[in-house]
Amino acid sequence: MTSFRDDGAAALDWVAAYLEGVRELPVLAQVEPGAIKAALPAAPPDGPEPFASVLRDLDEVLLPGLTHWQSPRFFAYFATTGSEPGVLAELLIAGLNQVGILWRTSPALQELEEVTLDWLAQLLGLPAGLHGHIEDTASTSTLVALAVARAARPGRRVVVCSEHAHSSVDKAAKLLELELRKVPVDEAYRLRTEQLDLDGACCVVATVGTTSSTSVDPVPEIADRCEAEGVWLHVDAAYAGAAAVCPELRDLFGGWERADSIVVNPHKWLGVPMDCSILWTRKPEAFRDAFSLVPEYLRAADDVASLSEHTQVLGRRFRALKLWAVLRCYGRSGLQERIRKHVALAELFEEWVRADGAWEVVAPRPFSVVCFRLRGSDEDNERLLERVNATGEVFISHTRLAGRYVLRLAIGSFRTTEEDVRLAWDVLRREAATL
Amino acid sequence: MTSFRDDGAAALDWVAAYLEGVRELPVLAQVEPGAIKAALPAAPPDGPEPFASVLRDLDEVLLPGLTHWQSPRFFAYFATTGSEPGVLAELLIAGLNQVGILWRTSPALQELEEVTLDWLAQLLGLPAGLHGHIEDTASTSTLVALAVARAARPGRRVVVCSEHAHSSVDKAAKLLELELRKVPVDEAYRLRTEQLDLDGACCVVATVGTTSSTSVDPVPEIADRCEAEGVWLHVDAAYAGAAAVCPELRDLFGGWERADSIVVNPHKWLGVPMDCSILWTRKPEAFRDAFSLVPEYLRAADDVASLSEHTQVLGRRFRALKLWAVLRCYGRSGLQERIRKHVALAELFEEWVRADGAWEVVAPRPFSVVCFRLRGSDEDNERLLERVNATGEVFISHTRLAGRYVLRLAIGSFRTTEEDVRLAWDVLRREAATL
Repeated sequence: MTSFRDDGAAALDWVAAYLEGVRELPVLAQVEPGAIKAALPAAPPDGPEPFASVLRDLDEVLLPGLTHWQSPRFFAYFATTGSEPGVLAELLIAGLNQVGILWRTSPALQELEEVTLDWLAQLLGLPAGLHGHIEDTASTSTLVALAVARAARPGRRVVVCSEHAHSSVDKAAKLLELELRKVPVDEAYRLRTEQLDLDGACCVVATVGTTSSTSVDPVPEIADRCEAEGVWLHVDAAYAGAAAVCPELRDLFGGWERADSIVVNPHKWLGVPMDCSILWTRKPEAFRDAFSLVPEYLRAADDVASLSEHTQVLGRRFRALKLWAVLRCYGRSGLQERIRKHVALAELFEEWVRADGAWEVVAPRPFSVVCFRLRGSDEDNERLLERVNATGEVFISHTRLAGRYVLRLAIGSFRTTEEDVRLAWDVLRREAATL
Repeated sequence: MTSFRDDGAAALDWVAAYLEGVRELPVLAQVEPGAIKAALPAAPPDGPEPFASVLRDLDEVLLPGLTHWQSPRFFAYFATTGSEPGVLAELLIAGLNQVGILWRTSPALQELEEVTLDWLAQLLGLPAGLHGHIEDTASTSTLVALAVARAARPGRRVVVCSEHAHSSVDKAAKLLELELRKVPVDEAYRLRTEQLDLDGACCVVATVGTTSSTSVDPVPEIADRCEAEGVWLHVDAAYAGAAAVCPELRDLFGGWERADSIVVNPHKWLGVPMDCSILWTRKPEAFRDAFSLVPEYLRAADDVASLSEHTQVLGRRFRALKLWAVLRCYGRSGLQERIRKHVALAELFEEWVRADGAWEVVAPRPFSVVCFRLRGSDEDNERLLERVNATGEVFISHTRLAGRYVLRLAIGSFRTTEEDVRLAWDVLRREAATL
C-alpha cells in the first residue's frame, strides 16, 4: 500500500496543480485529428510500468489533446464544474468500488441515493414524495422515461416535443420506434401550445431550458393538455433544473411539479463531475412495471426493491456519494450563491452586447446563456467563432435560431469570474475587427 | 486550493486505510433495510460543511451499510477489483472532467479510447481492425448491439440466446420490442445448437462465461449458422473475456473473432473500477447507421466522427484513462499472473469440494467460478448460504442449475489469497455442521 499512498499523493498533486493552472491553458484543444493517437505506442506494455509513467504521459502526450471543461474560460455548450468536493468524492467512490445491483449489494448506495435525491428535490422546491434514481446522462434518463411512457400508454406510439427539444429525444424515439412529432416554437423559441396535437401520443417532452437558447416551454398549459388527454408528461430540465435552487427563479419552473417524470443533471450546473443525471417520477410503479426483471441468481431473501428495477442498467455506480458531498460542502446557500453569480454575469455580458451597435442579442436570456451575434452574415459569424476558438483564450459554441447562425456564451463554471467574461467579450470584439 | 490539497490528503488517507483494512470488515452489509436512511438527516444543510464531515459520516453512518466489493473475501456474483492504479485514475478523470460529445470536446478522450481498446484487443488475441467504444455496463453494450442488429436486419424481430444468457438480454429485447427465443442447454449448460432455430432472427447472443455457471456456448457452430442465415452474432464475454489474456485459455474463446459484436467488461475481472464495459464490432458503419444524429448546435468544422455517433448516450466520461492506467501498471504479464492465480485458486477449491463426500461439484469450471452444493436439500443449501453470509466472514451467492439450488464461489479479486479461499471453505463446512 506504500505505492498507493505515494502514487496517490502524486496524482492528487497533479490534479491540484492542474486546477490551479487550468485558466492559462488553451481552452479548446489545438491538435490535429490523429495527433494524440500517433503519439501513443501501438502496442500495450508486456510488463508493469510505474504509475508515474501514466502521470508523465498525461502531461507530455495527452494534455495538448484535452479541451479544458474545467477552465473558467470554457463558455461552450453548457459550461460545467467538477467541483473540489465532487472530484474527491470520485476518489472515494472508486476506492469503495460499490456495485448497486440489489439493495443488499450496497444498502448505503441505495439508501444514500434515496436520501440525497430527496434533499435535492427539497432544494429545488419540488413536491415531497417523488421517487428518484440516478442515471449516467440525460440521454439515458429521457430514454428510460419514454420507455415507461410507451409501456404505460399501450397503442400510442407518438412522442411530442418542440422543434427545440434536445437531440436525445430524437435518439430515444428512434430506439423505441416511436414517431416523433415536433411542434413549432414561438418568437421566444417556446413550444406553441395552440399547435399541440396529442392524437396517438403516449408522451410529451416539455423543456425548461432548451439547449439552443435555454427557452422555457409553457409547462402549465402543456400539463393541462396532458392531464386532459391522459398523456405522460416528461420535463427536461437537464441544464436549467439547478437554477430552481434560487426561489427568485422558481417562476420559470411553474408546472414542472405536475410532470410524470423530470430530468435534472447535477453534472451540468451543480458542481458534480461527469456523470450524474437524476430522473424523478410521481409514478415509480410504472417504472417497475416497465423494467423489473429479477433472475434467480439475483434473488435475495431480504426482498427489498432495488433501484435497478426502475431502469435498464443492472450494475450502478455509487454516484450518490458525489452528489451528497457536493450538497453538503456547498449547502443551500453556497449553491444559490453560484447560480446567482452566473445569472448576473450572463446579464452583464448581455448588457455589453446590447450597448454595442455592431452586435445584437437574439433570444431572451432566462438563465446563464446569452445568444448573440455580430450584425452581419452567417459566414462572418462562423468565421469569427473559428478565430475566437483558435486563439485558445476562450471557448464559445454556436447554434442556429430562426435560420440564422448564432453565437452562445454559456456561463456555468464555479471558477468563472467577471474578468473571464470580460476577456470573452474583449476577444470577440478584437477578432471581429480582423474579419 | 489549500483545502483541496488538505481535503485530498485526508480522502486519500481514508481510501488507503480502507483498502488496508477491508479484509477484516464484514463482507456482506449486516444492516436492516432502512437503517442507513434513518441515520441520515432528512433535510440538506443550509450552509457549507467541511469535507471532513463527509469523511466522518462515511465512517460513522455509511460504513455499516456497505457490502465490501473490495474485500478479498467477496466471492459472490462475479468478484471484482478496483485496483490501485484504476482508483487513482478515477481521481484524474474527475479532476479533468472531460465530456466526450464530439471529437473536439476532448480529442484525447476519443483517441486514447481508440488506442486503449486496440491494445486490449491485442492482449485478448482478437483480430486487428475491430472498432470499439466504452459503455457503462454490459446492460448497455448488449442493448446497443441488439439495436444495431435490429436496424441491420429489418423485418426480423427475434433474438435468440440460451436459457442461461444474462438477464440483460431479456431487458434489451423488452426495450427493443423484440421477441426472445431461448434455446435449451446441454448437460454442461451450453446452448444446444441442434435446437437453434433462426427463423425470423435478427440476432443470436452467444455467451462465453454465463452468469450462473460460466459455461461456454459452442460459438464456432453458432457462427456458422449465423453466417449461413445472415444473422448478427453478438458474443457476451462480459466476465470471461479478460481470461483471453492467457494464451492457454484461448481455446475457450474459439469463434468469438467471427462475432459481429463482442462485449467484455474490464470492471469485472481486469482491475478497472466500476464502470467500464467494452463493445467491439467488425461493422462500425452499422452502428453509425443506427445511432448517428448530429444536431446543428453540435456540428463542428473539423468533421471527425465522434464515438457518440456509435451509441445511444451523447456525453461520455473519460473512462479510457482508467483502462489505460490499469493496462500500463500491470502490463500483459501482470494481468496474466492474476487471471492464472484466480483460475488456480478456483481449481484448488474445486478439489477440496470433490474430496469431501458431503459436498458435490455441479458444473464444469472453465474459469474462476465453482458451482457446488452440500449433498442435501435445496432448503439446506439455502439455509447454509444465509448462515455463511450472516457471519460476515465471506460473501458467497447462489444460482439454480437443472432446477437445483446451487452455491457459487467466484474468485476475481486481485487481493484474494489462498488463505481467503481456505477461509471460505472452512466457514462453509463449519456452518454446514450446524444445520
